Amino acid sequence: MKFSARNTLKGKIKKVEHGAVNSEIQVELPGGAVLTSIITKTSAQNLDLKEGKEVYAVIKASNVMIATD
Amino acid sequence: MKFSARNTLKGKIKKVEHGAVNSEIQVELPGGAVLTSIITKTSAQNLDLKEGKEVYAVIKASNVMIATD
Amino acid sequence: MKFSARNTLKGKIKKVEHGAVNSEIQVELPGGAVLTSIITKTSAQNLDLKEGKEVYAVIKASNVMIATD
Amino acid sequence: MKFSARNTLKGKIKKVEHGAVNSEIQVELPGGAVLTSIITKTSAQNLDLKEGKEVYAVIKASNVMIATD
Amino acid sequence: MKFSARNTLKGKIKKVEHGAVNSEIQVELPGGAVLTSIITKTSAQNLDLKEGKEVYAVIKASNVMIATD
Amino acid sequence: MKFSARNTLKGKIKKVEHGAVNSEIQVELPGGAVLTSIITKTSAQNLDLKEGKEVYAVIKASNVMIATD
Repeated sequence: MKFSARNTLKGKIKKVEHGAVNSEIQVELPGGAVLTSIITKTSAQNLDLKEGKEVYAVIKASNVMIATD
Repeated sequence: MKFSARNTLKGKIKKVEHGAVNSEIQVELPGGAVLTSIITKTSAQNLDLKEGKEVYAVIKASNVMIATD
Repeated sequence: MKFSARNTLKGKIKKVEHGAVNSEIQVELPGGAVLTSIITKTSAQNLDLKEGKEVYAVIKASNVMIATD
Repeated sequence: MKFSARNTLKGKIKKVEHGAVNSEIQVELPGGAVLTSIITKTSAQNLDLKEGKEVYAVIKASNVMIATD
Repeated sequence: MKFSARNTLKGKIKKVEHGAVNSEIQVELPGGAVLTSIITKTSAQNLDLKEGKEVYAVIKASNVMIATD
Repeated sequence: MKFSARNTLKGKIKKVEHGAVNSEIQVELPGGAVLTSIITKTSAQNLDLKEGKEVYAVIKASNVMIATD
């Protein structure tokens, strides 16, 4: 399946924390930066997300903001 | 100013393309990956975004999705 | 590739309209309802989106609101 | 009240699940497809969302992504 | 129609600027603050948005971030 | 740090409620209107958000919708 979201970053899951309906997933990128994602707990379970698993963080371009020093 | 958005990735602007009301900004991360951002043209002008400028891509955690192979 | 976004609706492209940096894609669902999507023009071109093509509209659960009469 | 969000899909609530601050609402569309929504628990309570209630799923066009096979 | 989005701010349109597929709408709040909104041009036309018109800016709670000095 | 998000509203925290992974923050604006924000609990803790603290609600323009009577 090809996807319109412009941003796909490969990484490895560092931590998974489940709430009642949402889960927080931390993904470590190759350079060491960590991205945090909030998805539904059902999605986290459907994708069998666990520490160490290789995944992609996917972000729609209209959700990326820019900041300057 | 400290900010609630969990994800901040430092990079350098690779390309800026202006539309009538929105602009597309491409940010190259240290490892070579390129993030694409859509912001208003007014924001791009206010921040004086130009090729080569060091910026941060900022993403709210609830806008990061996860995919697996 | 498996994806965390909970909502995937199959449909057929009814109309594509390109702006300078964004494109508007209209997807007709089997029952006749039409979903409108805004993605970058580059994505629309990468996916070769054209009238009549079968596609999926994909929506993260946190972006679905509820209204009542 | 008329609303700028382009996408409004009528359906019936199939399931409501409450977390501490968010709730997950599943809406069954006429054709049988199920949309999942995450809204605040306070909204779910204000709208008195319950299984079987007729509601609309509302989605801003910029939050609809496209995928192809 | 009652709506799950938690944030509704009444204001008056200060400026409308159309692009090819999106429009930028500026809404002046009673205290003088100005909110900027990007919606599709079709929505702006459907709602007949013009300078001086009284409207509501509507924002889903998961799209509101917090910053501190 | 300068930020591309177009909308920044100053206010005072009225209420903080923590869930397992997300927190709901209510911000009272000068005119008395209250904005509700959902951010991760970790962000709420990192920013030390508490009742009475002065903060900014920050919203990307593409996340502001418009409604009319």
